[in-house]
Formats: sequence, C-alpha cells, structure tokens
Amino acid sequence: MSSSAHAFARRASELSPMLPAAAPPGNIAFDSGHAFPGVLPDLSVEAATALAMYRAETLQYAPRTGLPELRAWIAQYMTSDGAPVSAEDILVTNGAKHALELVCRLLLDEGDTVVMTAPTYFSAIPIIRSYGATFIEVRQDHAGLDVDDLAGILDQRRRDGKPRPKFIYDVPDFHNPTGVTMPVDRRAALLDLAAAHGIAVVEDSPYRKVRFEGASVPSLKALDHRDIVLQLGTFSKLMAPGLRVGWVAASPALVARMAQLKTDAGSCPLTQRTILEFCAHGRLTQHIARVQERYRANRDRMVAAVRRDLPDVSFVMPHGGYYLWLTFPNGVDADELAACANRIGVTVISGSRFFACGDARHPRNHLRVAYSHADEQEIDEGVRRLAAAYAAVGNGAPAAAASH
Amino acid sequence: MSSSAHAFARRASELSPMLPAAAPPGNIAFDSGHAFPGVLPDLSVEAATALAMYRAETLQYAPRTGLPELRAWIAQYMTSDGAPVSAEDILVTNGAKHALELVCRLLLDEGDTVVMTAPTYFSAIPIIRSYGATFIEVRQDHAGLDVDDLAGILDQRRRDGKPRPKFIYDVPDFHNPTGVTMPVDRRAALLDLAAAHGIAVVEDSPYRKVRFEGASVPSLKALDHRDIVLQLGTFSKLMAPGLRVGWVAASPALVARMAQLKTDAGSCPLTQRTILEFCAHGRLTQHIARVQERYRANRDRMVAAVRRDLPDVSFVMPHGGYYLWLTFPNGVDADELAACANRIGVTVISGSRFFACGDARHPRNHLRVAYSHADEQEIDEGVRRLAAAYAAVGNGAPAAAASH
Repeated sequence: MSSSAHAFARRASELSPMLPAAAPPGNIAFDSGHAFPGVLPDLSVEAATALAMYRAETLQYAPRTGLPELRAWIAQYMTSDGAPVSAEDILVTNGAKHALELVCRLLLDEGDTVVMTAPTYFSAIPIIRSYGATFIEVRQDHAGLDVDDLAGILDQRRRDGKPRPKFIYDVPDFHNPTGVTMPVDRRAALLDLAAAHGIAVVEDSPYRKVRFEGASVPSLKALDHRDIVLQLGTFSKLMAPGLRVGWVAASPALVARMAQLKTDAGSCPLTQRTILEFCAHGRLTQHIARVQERYRANRDRMVAAVRRDLPDVSFVMPHGGYYLWLTFPNGVDADELAACANRIGVTVISGSRFFACGDARHPRNHLRVAYSHADEQEIDEGVRRLAAAYAAVGNGAPAAAASH
Repeated sequence: MSSSAHAFARRASELSPMLPAAAPPGNIAFDSGHAFPGVLPDLSVEAATALAMYRAETLQYAPRTGLPELRAWIAQYMTSDGAPVSAEDILVTNGAKHALELVCRLLLDEGDTVVMTAPTYFSAIPIIRSYGATFIEVRQDHAGLDVDDLAGILDQRRRDGKPRPKFIYDVPDFHNPTGVTMPVDRRAALLDLAAAHGIAVVEDSPYRKVRFEGASVPSLKALDHRDIVLQLGTFSKLMAPGLRVGWVAASPALVARMAQLKTDAGSCPLTQRTILEFCAHGRLTQHIARVQERYRANRDRMVAAVRRDLPDVSFVMPHGGYYLWLTFPNGVDADELAACANRIGVTVISGSRFFACGDARHPRNHLRVAYSHADEQEIDEGVRRLAAAYAAVGNGAPAAAASH
C-alpha cells in the first residue's frame, strides 16, 4: 500500500492547512489565535474537584450531547446574551471547528453550495470543502456581509434555476479576519433574506465577549424568530483554546440528528466538568473582564505601532476580537510580504488565505495580524519587523505604493 | 427551516446509534463498554501536574498530530508490544472512533467497499457507512476472520471486474462482540491476502492488554512488513473511557495526511498531558494488572452464572476483553429476548445489531453481554434476570429450543 497510499488519499485541496502551533524561539507570532499566556486561567481547583467529586462522570463515557449540566449552563449563558434557548438546543462539541463539521455533516451533500464573505475565516474553508460543497462569495463592507450583494446573487441564481445554497456562514461579531461587526439592521436584513430563500444561517461567534468598547449587538441567534440560525460557540476564546470544548445551538431536532452524526463517543467529560466548575461558580465573569482588558491594551498597542511604523497602511478599528486586517497600498503583494516577514522573525498570514475561491479579482494587498498572543514589547518589535519587511518588499511595486 | 430541517438532514440509516450512557437506577447494565467503577484510576496528581507545570502547553492549542512526548510514548509502547514504530507514525485522536473516522476520511470515497466480519463492532458500522461505503461481510469462526472465505470473495470480485475493497476492518484481539482472538498463522494469512490484493488493513485493538490468560499473539501491525496496516489504539480500555484520547499508527505520510483531515485544532492537550504523566511514571503497568485481575474475576463470575442459569446457551470462552457472545438455541429471536430483558432490568444488546448488512441469513439467536461494568452481585442478578427473560420469550419457539 505504500505506493497506493497517495492514490487512496484525498485531494490536497480538501485538506485543512497546518499552521505552526507555536512560534519558534525569537519569532514573534502575529499569526495565531493563541491566547495571551498571562490570561490563561488557573484551573487546578476545578480539575481537582472534577476528578475527586465526579470521578464516575469524568472518567466514564459521557452522553454524546454533552453533560446535562453544562448544556443547561450554556443555554442560560446564551439566554442572558439575548438568545432564549434551553439545554435541549445545545450540543456540546470538541470545539467550534468540530461544531462546524457536524453542521456540514448534517446539512451538506456533494455539490451543494455555501455562502461565505470574501474574505472569511480560513479554517472554515477546508472543513466545508471537505464535505463536497463549493462556495458563493459575497462582498463585505465596514458593516459586514453585504446583504444587497447577496440578494442580487440569490435572485440571479433563482432566475438561472440553480439550487439555493445550503447555508450562509458568517462571523458577525469581530469578524475573522476583518474585525468588523455587523449592525443590528444589517443582521435583521440578512435573516429576512435567508428566510425568504429558505437558507440556514451558521453564526460563528467565538469573539463575541471579547469586546473592548461599545454596546453589544444582538446575536443572529437572538434575532432568529424563524429558527433558521445555528450558532457555533466555544470556550477557546472565553477560557483557553486547549480545552477543546465548544457547542452548537440549534433546534432540538437538529441537535438530536447532529448527536447521532457525532461518532466520537461523547466529548471529554473531564474537561466539560472542569469548565462547568469554573463557569458555574462565577469565575468566568471575572475572567472575561480580564480578557477584555488585556486584549484592549494589546489592540491599542498594535494600533499605535502600526500608525507609527506603517503609515501607508489602513485598517478598520476593531472594537473586539483578536485581529487587525491591514490594507497595504494597491500593488503590494501580501503573499510576498508575509513570506518576507516570516523570514525576518514575525509570522503573519497573507490575506489571500482568507478567500474561499481563487478569484484573480480578489485584492492581494491584505495581511491579518493578531494582537492576542504577543506582549506589548513583542507587538512593538513585531510591527517594526513587519515595517522592515514592507520596506524590503514594497520597493518591488513603487509606483502603486507611492500613489496611495 | 424547521420544516426543511428534516429534508436537509442525513438519512437515518447513516446515523450512529444512540446507546444509553448509563443504566437507570436498579437496572443492570450488560450493554455498555463502561469501565468497572472500582478500577477507574485516580488522576488528580497527574492533572494537577499538567495544569501547574505545563500551563502554556495544556491550555493553548496543541499540535494537531498530538503532543510530541505522547506520540513518542505511544510509539515506545507499541514497539515494546512488538510493532516497531516511531513518533512520526502516531497521530493522536479524540479516541479510537475518531481514529477510524479519520481513516475513513483518508481512504474512502462514495461507493467504495469495506470488508468486515459478520458480526462486527457495531459502532464502526455507521462511521464507515457515513463516508458512503458499503460492506462486504466475511465469515468468522473460532479463530476469527475466515481468510479462505475472504479469498474466495476477493477472487470472485476480481473475476467480476469489481473494484477491490478499500480496507479490511477487524478486531483481532478479543473481538467485539465474539471475544475470539485470531492466531498468528491466521493473521499472517490475512496480511498475505490483503497485500496480494492491494488492500489496507485497519486493526482495531482496544482490548489487547485486557488479557486474562495465555500468551499474547503478535498484533497485525507487528506482523506488517509491507506497510499495509493502520492500527487504532485508545486509552479508553487501558485507563478510562472518559479521557477520549486514542491514536492511529500508520506511515508518516498517511499520518501527515490524516492530520490535515483532522480539522479540530488538535486533541485536548490537558488530557494528553494528564495521560502522559500517568503512563510515563510507570502507573500504567500497575494499572493494567489491576484491570486484568478485575475483569478476569468478572468474566469468571459471568461464565459461572451463565452455565448455572442458562444451560441452553453456548459461548466461546474469551481470554480477554469485555464481552461474552451468547448463542441461544436456534429459533430464539434475540431482538425479542433483548427487549424483554431490558424491560425486566438487565440491558443487553441483540446480536442482530452487530451485522453490517441486513441479511436474512444472519443468525437471530445471539446476544452480547458485557461483564466489564457490573459487580459480582449484579452479574449474578443480571444473568438471573436474563434467564427469566429467556424463559418468558423462549416459550415462543419451544420446538427449536428444545431440540438444541
């Protein structure tokens, strides 16, 4: 089989990209969704309680839908966030990516289409693609997914007799990678459009609580009076990425179907109980405040550094989340820039990675930089290195850069 | 979408069966693969160490292939079991079912075929089916998978111009549900046949160390000189089911491919490190001895109870594992018997659940009973209840039963 193994294996295009799990020493990581090390919570009391008081629960198989108490806690958490759901609406998963995978298993058949913003969260692309779907890209502006653009696309498809997309995938709060948040009227319009066409909406909102200023906007799930939204949640950005516990909120019927498609014999009850101990005893609220404070300071530091060292670069100020989406002058090739930056010790991700379709019309001059993981000194030094990379690469396109 | 949700969702036949996670009070559970509560290890020191000494590792994203030290430990564990592999051959997964799922994602396309014994491990059936494959069932005897039967099937398929199956799935040690272990010459013959036809072999061996007597037989992976075996492993039966950590051992090229198909952002590093602390400090060896002793005693108790209370019933004595595969007299309908037993307080699983194909020629007179979870008093009482159910149901087929 050693010779046939490659023939057996899936097309490389269906594979999920491998990102460096941690930066090499000396490198500054602006590429990862890792948490800031100083805000990782101390879970030792919670884990000890989980193992001592709940041994039979935490070490045996757990219900495939998740621990009942954790489902109830998540439902209450969502309800207090404006989306009244009950425990039966919650399926616990091994993180939000696993939740998306289960949604794909539930909804997609080979040849289906899925709507995504251009750009979009890159890790969602290979997951959806691996279920045989292709993408319909929709424009995005400073208020998020462009609903008028999508309406035009859907009307055209209907006239052409093409099947409706199976779902619309979006990150409405602190969008990854652009950082924009969709206002409430845009959200309502998106739901009206989706309902009119009979399309489900998958709301992926890992950063929702990582808000630095301003009032929160109702989630799509909170505005969902027609039961068309499946919301993906995670403890990765609330507590710690390594926990690998997330959820999907949907109707009980869909939760039951997805539980049957979840063939993993249940998510780890030890981590579920540890999380529950943390959340149910009030530590989460305090912890979120710490997270907001830390990432606000990191954002401010990076914004100041970019304004100082990269004056050619524009961005929309994010009011939460982990990322700045940098727009370099037209003509800059961000693939080349990212490769250069990575060589001189600051890892960044080129914007081209965030487009589901390889369309030649997509802009080539974006970079995503994360301010979540680095400390303030690293942020300053990383932006300096990025500016050095830009100085080196930008010279390759002087006319366009200079005209900006 | 509430009306269209069911239309969107997958066919029920593709769904994985939901088993009760735990027996209701008063009920005796002979249906589950739960561990005996008294042998669940105390992991509090290991978890505390993982959280205190390895916070940045255990709470951040982990490498998608698994913690390097755990991969190395598993490789050494397999090497000492006769299969010389290295860390690069190991992909850490969220349990053995997840490992099987990744193997399916790697190898299967819609319309492929997979070889399974009849009967086989029932949880593998919907996983493989959900990747669009159909099954070729092969006979099994007291020495496991009938290689001559399979050779005939494969030759016939070749003559008919049918494509070769993508892989052969088997549980060669303490087979689930039959408990039989394949002798070494049969294993060698199976590998020769698979290699001659260019078919991969998926060795699922969760119970391998749960051996009560006799020398262990080399694993298929240990006998694999042609790199055709993918071995699935798990800590569920070695330590505790709730940990949800397993692995697949394959060539580094296939491991790299499966890591890309593993879209879950890595398995939980907290559980991985906790397991590693337990294993690397020598506790696993002691623990396995305890597990063997406990389950040997449980098996002996159940064997004695069945011989005493169900004299019509035959079985092959298992030398390890969790299960007895009971053969009732011809004419007994085990579906009916299981339903009756479940009503009177002992949950068992009808043998009909363990066949991949709904073939009318399959025997209807088998039950699988697990001796792993119940204590000795429960084993006695559970078998008494099963005998009562048999007395009630067996009357429905008196002639056949009496002629046995």
